[in-house]
Amino acid sequence: MTSQTPPEPGAPGLGRGLFVAFEGGDGAGKSTQSGLLGAWLERQGYAVRHTREPGGTELGRQIRELLLHGEDGSVSPRAEALLFAADRAHHVASLVRPALEQGEVVLTDRYLDSSVAYQGAARALGHEEVRELSLWAVEGLVPDLTVLLDVPAELGRERRGEVHDRLEREADDFHDRVRRGFLDLAAREPGRYLVVDATRPAEEIAATVAARVGELLGALR
Amino acid sequence: MTSQTPPEPGAPGLGRGLFVAFEGGDGAGKSTQSGLLGAWLERQGYAVRHTREPGGTELGRQIRELLLHGEDGSVSPRAEALLFAADRAHHVASLVRPALEQGEVVLTDRYLDSSVAYQGAARALGHEEVRELSLWAVEGLVPDLTVLLDVPAELGRERRGEVHDRLEREADDFHDRVRRGFLDLAAREPGRYLVVDATRPAEEIAATVAARVGELLGALR
Repeated sequence: MTSQTPPEPGAPGLGRGLFVAFEGGDGAGKSTQSGLLGAWLERQGYAVRHTREPGGTELGRQIRELLLHGEDGSVSPRAEALLFAADRAHHVASLVRPALEQGEVVLTDRYLDSSVAYQGAARALGHEEVRELSLWAVEGLVPDLTVLLDVPAELGRERRGEVHDRLEREADDFHDRVRRGFLDLAAREPGRYLVVDATRPAEEIAATVAARVGELLGALR
Repeated sequence: MTSQTPPEPGAPGLGRGLFVAFEGGDGAGKSTQSGLLGAWLERQGYAVRHTREPGGTELGRQIRELLLHGEDGSVSPRAEALLFAADRAHHVASLVRPALEQGEVVLTDRYLDSSVAYQGAARALGHEEVRELSLWAVEGLVPDLTVLLDVPAELGRERRGEVHDRLEREADDFHDRVRRGFLDLAAREPGRYLVVDATRPAEEIAATVAARVGELLGALR
């Protein structure tokens, strides 16, 4: 892995921190990679904050409960999108921005792109309107780097340990739409994305991610 | 009051129902007027649905609880706006639209304009962005008529039975901004608003409101 000089307190550029999001379908290895990157950064002396969406704050966890156990499960698509956006708005305002202002490296398991990819794939709402809603919620805060762990839907399912039947094949179509949603977002802003083949060994992926994050941290100093 | 011929089941134009919102500050008499109009409509044979925001649905009541008793009371302004919008989206999708499709007259105590006027007056967000967010939440559903019960802030406070001290005078400034927010919205679309002086006797106001609603129902037939 790339080696980094530990940051000095108040070093120029670090007042802003660094914001890295891990995105990808279930079973892509987001929490594994976030953990490996966090450990590597801490070895370099960086203050690291791990978080997640939805439910990164107490309010967010309550919102998540509403979504999972709402009135006969029938939350309308726009109400659902607005609740996810409210969770994100509060997460960013109360946790992510303050940590970045302290100069920390914030690693989040899912962020804005997950809403766009999943809600867009569910087809009730368009990708673009979900994206605009999310951007309004976070006052335009986008990650310095989004690591997209790209994995074919079938492999994601195997990793989740599910059986392959007709329903699963229909679910694969949905996961394929989610995957294409993520890849489309990455293609629009290649400079802010690192797309990695998530079928590679975890250590190899971690080294690729660390190299890119190391470059970004070097540029900040 | 205006007399109306009772509607026939399935009468042309009534498949759409009629949507009337009551707006105005606290103490303006919204629930009184909504009740008087509803009773008058029922005497004419109309099916009337009374509802309110926030909290017109079970999900809405849970959202309201979150807003009132959230994590140390510090819900960020955008998260708050998004939660109100989620309540509204669910209210419209699950209650208001279905009732209108059944041809009912829906009377709501507060709707979209309250968000614009209150959140705009709180100054953390602009009137226009709150309005756009609300319109997205409800897929553009605006009332056929909004009855704005206009009352000077001072009178509203007296009706609420509050004492007049320094804090109350500061509160009056806030309520003045809310009032101006409502009046600005009414001025933008005079055809869809009925602005009434809420200091007039309740029965006089009710007659004015019934006359206007009667015209609208006549036009629908």
